[in-house]
Amino acid sequence: MSNGSATGATFHLGELHGSLSDPVLSSMTLLNEITGRFPDAVSFAAGRPYEEFYDPLQIHDHLERFRKYLEVERGLGSEEVRTALFQYGHTKGLLTDLLVRHLAADEGVHADPDSVVVTTGCQEAMILLLRALRTGSADVILAPAPTYVGFLGAARLMDMPVLPVAEGSGGIDVEDLVVQIGRARERGLNPRACYVVPDFANPSGLSMSLADRRLLLDVAEREGILLIEDNPYSLFNADGRRLPSLKSLDTTRRVVYVGSFAKTAFPGARVGYLVADQRVSGTGPGEGPLLADQLAKLKSMLTLNTSTISQAVIGGKLLETDCSMTRATEREAEVYRRNLAAVLAGLDTHFPVPEDGSRPRATWNIPGGGMFAVITLPFEADAAMLEYSASEFGVLWTPMRYFYPEGGGTHQIRLSFSVLTPERIDEGLARLAALVRDRTARP
Amino acid sequence: MSNGSATGATFHLGELHGSLSDPVLSSMTLLNEITGRFPDAVSFAAGRPYEEFYDPLQIHDHLERFRKYLEVERGLGSEEVRTALFQYGHTKGLLTDLLVRHLAADEGVHADPDSVVVTTGCQEAMILLLRALRTGSADVILAPAPTYVGFLGAARLMDMPVLPVAEGSGGIDVEDLVVQIGRARERGLNPRACYVVPDFANPSGLSMSLADRRLLLDVAEREGILLIEDNPYSLFNADGRRLPSLKSLDTTRRVVYVGSFAKTAFPGARVGYLVADQRVSGTGPGEGPLLADQLAKLKSMLTLNTSTISQAVIGGKLLETDCSMTRATEREAEVYRRNLAAVLAGLDTHFPVPEDGSRPRATWNIPGGGMFAVITLPFEADAAMLEYSASEFGVLWTPMRYFYPEGGGTHQIRLSFSVLTPERIDEGLARLAALVRDRTARP
Repeated sequence: MSNGSATGATFHLGELHGSLSDPVLSSMTLLNEITGRFPDAVSFAAGRPYEEFYDPLQIHDHLERFRKYLEVERGLGSEEVRTALFQYGHTKGLLTDLLVRHLAADEGVHADPDSVVVTTGCQEAMILLLRALRTGSADVILAPAPTYVGFLGAARLMDMPVLPVAEGSGGIDVEDLVVQIGRARERGLNPRACYVVPDFANPSGLSMSLADRRLLLDVAEREGILLIEDNPYSLFNADGRRLPSLKSLDTTRRVVYVGSFAKTAFPGARVGYLVADQRVSGTGPGEGPLLADQLAKLKSMLTLNTSTISQAVIGGKLLETDCSMTRATEREAEVYRRNLAAVLAGLDTHFPVPEDGSRPRATWNIPGGGMFAVITLPFEADAAMLEYSASEFGVLWTPMRYFYPEGGGTHQIRLSFSVLTPERIDEGLARLAALVRDRTARP
Repeated sequence: MSNGSATGATFHLGELHGSLSDPVLSSMTLLNEITGRFPDAVSFAAGRPYEEFYDPLQIHDHLERFRKYLEVERGLGSEEVRTALFQYGHTKGLLTDLLVRHLAADEGVHADPDSVVVTTGCQEAMILLLRALRTGSADVILAPAPTYVGFLGAARLMDMPVLPVAEGSGGIDVEDLVVQIGRARERGLNPRACYVVPDFANPSGLSMSLADRRLLLDVAEREGILLIEDNPYSLFNADGRRLPSLKSLDTTRRVVYVGSFAKTAFPGARVGYLVADQRVSGTGPGEGPLLADQLAKLKSMLTLNTSTISQAVIGGKLLETDCSMTRATEREAEVYRRNLAAVLAGLDTHFPVPEDGSRPRATWNIPGGGMFAVITLPFEADAAMLEYSASEFGVLWTPMRYFYPEGGGTHQIRLSFSVLTPERIDEGLARLAALVRDRTARP
C-alpha cells in the first residue's frame, strides 16, 4: 500500500490476493458488465430460475408455516421460537430434520440429521469442503472441464488448484479421471476429491449414465478420493426419467452431497446444505466425529450460522409440499421442459443442415433436461464477439471458454433458457443465426 | 483418507485444514459443550443480545416496510420488487443507500454508497478483508491481545497469522503497535493491517481515548497499514458519551469499517457490512476501482449475495427509525446500562476489600459501557475450572485465555451480562464469590 498522499491510501492489485487477478473472477465481472449494457437484448446469458410464480406474499406464508412447525411439530414454546428466529443459531442450522425428509422424498438419500449442515447457499458448502481439504501445497481437486464457474472461483479463493478431467457426451470421462489422478500423483500431488454435477450440468447440460455413476463410485473407492456431488438441476428432466443421485448409490461414504434451493425454491434466500457422513479420526477416543461436524466448525468462523430468517422461509416452503421439491416445482419443471423443446426446435429451424453437403454453420448438444445447451460455432466466441453480438444483433450468451480452468471451449457458447418464453427463444435464435451468417459470409 | 472398509471412508484430522486442530476453534466447541450441559447455571458466558423486545410479528412488519420502500422511495415496479426479493441479488447488496444514512446518523461517517458492501454478518466482512490482504507467507495482521475470538478464527481460516499487540487500560497500546510492526518487518514479515474494537471491546470491555484514536490513525498513516475497525457495541455507553469512531476521524482512508447489526437489530439475520473507500491501482487506466469492488468480487465467490430476505428485514428495521440505530436501541441500551451497574455494584458487595490489608480475592476493570467486564482471580481459570464452577457452584463464565493468540489471561475470566436481570447478576456473583472462597480457602 502506498503511504500518505493527498488522495489517501491506494493499493496495487498485486498487493491483494491472487484470485483478484484471476481470469475466472475477472471474466464474470466483465460478462456482467457487458450484459448489463444491453438490457433489451434477448439474453441467453443469465443462469437464473424462472420467476413468474414468485409472489412477495408467499414470504409471509412461509414464515408463518415454519413458526407453527416450530411450535407444533418441534414443541417449542413462544420464547424458544423467538430465540430460534432472532438469536445466533446452531451452526448446523434449523432445517436438518426437514432436509432429511426432503432428501428421502426427492433424492432417494437416507441421511442422518447429524450429517447435515445448512449453508449460506451451496456456494458456502463448496467453500467449506475446499477449505477442509486443503492442508498444504500438494492438495488438489479434480473436476470435469468445463466446470461451473462458482466452483472454480471458490477453489481459487481457497487456494485449491483444480485439475481438469475430460468430458464426453455423458459428462465426466471416468477413464480420464483415473489417468489424471495417476498423473497428479506422479507429480507429487495429492488428489483429494472430484467435483461433479451428474444431471444436466452447468455449463454443458450433459448427464451421466447409470453405468458411469457406478463406475465413478468404484473409482473413488479404489483411488481413495471423495466425490463432491452438486445436483441443483436434477428435478428438471425433460422426459420424466430420474437417474439415482451418486449419494443414493453411495454404500461406502465416498460422496459429500451439496444441495441447493436456488433453483427449486429461490436464490435470494441463500440457503443450501451439505451431507457429509464420513468419519474423522484423531480427535479423541471412539468412532470420531462426522466430517459434517468439522465442516460446521469451519462454518462457525465463516458465517456463524445460516440466516435464521432465510431458513424459516425455505423451511416454510419445504413444509408446503411435505418436503417434496419435486411437487413444489411442477410448474417450473414444465416451463423448463417447454423452453428446452423451443430451443431444440428453434435451432433446427434457424440452423438447417446445408443441402449442398457443406459443413453446418453450428452444431449443438441435446440435453435431457436442465437449463443449458451448448452450441459450437465456426468462429471464436470471446468477450469481443459477445459485445458485437449484443450491439449488432441484440442477443446475449456466455462464452464457454470461461468454464475451462486450463483453456478450451474457444468456439463454444452456452445458451441458458430458464427465464425466457418460447417466443423470445425463437427470436433470440433468429438473431444468433444472423450473427453466424454475418461472421461466416464470404466476402 | 483410508481406502475402503466396511464402515466407509474415514479421514484423519491431520488430513484436514490446520484450523481444525487449532486451539481457537476447538476451545469454542469445548466451551459451548460445557455451557450446554448446565442449563440451570447463571451464565455470564453468552455474548448474545437481550431478547425480551423481540417479537416474530416484527419480521412481517419489517418486510412490508422494506417492500414499500422499494416501491415508493426507490420507484421499483412490482416485477422489479419481486426480482429484488427472490432472485440472485447485486453482490454489494440492497441496503447500501440505507447504510449510508445509518452511518451518517449513528457513526458520523459520510460514506459513498459505492464503498459499502453488505455482508453475511460482520464475520464475512472480516473473512473478505483477511482473504484480500493475504498474498503470500509474509503477510500478517496485528491485533491487541486479548482479541475477539471470531476474528482469530477468521484469520486462522484464511491462513493469516495474527501478531499480538499489548493492551493497556485504554485498549490497544499504540506505542507497542509501532514496536510490533518494526519487529515483524525485521523478521521479513509484511504487516498489512491492525484489527481494533475502539469501544467496549470484546472481551476486555476497554475503550480507547480520543487522543489514542488520533495517535492510532497517525501510526497507520506513517507505517502504511490499514486499520480494520469493528464497532458492534459503540451505541451502548453507560454515561451517554460517544467518542468518534476511527472512520469518522479518517482523513486519509486508512480505515476499513466493519459494521454489525447483531447487537443493534438481531444476530439471526446475519447482516453486516463494510466500508472500504481505498483505491486499487493496476486494474486498468484511470483512478482504479474501490477496494469495496475488489472485496465484492471475493464475496461473489463466497456467498454470492447476502440473503435478500435478511436484508429486507434489516432494511425494514432501519427504516422504522429513519436509519438511526441509536433510536432503535434505546430500550436495549438502558438494559445494558442497568446490568453493567448491577455487575459493578455486585462485585463491590461480593468481593469486599479485605479490612486486614491482605490481598483482595479478585480485581476487575470498570468498563464505560458494552456487555463485558473482566475479573482477575487468584487462581488459574481454565476449562477444568469452568466445569468445576458450573457443577459445584452453578455459575458459568468464559476463560480469557482463549482470546490470546499467543498465551495470556490465564487467571482472568470474562463476564458477559447482556442477557441477565439484575437479580440473576447478583445471584451469579454470589456464586462466583463462593467459588473463589472455595479455591482460596486455607486448609
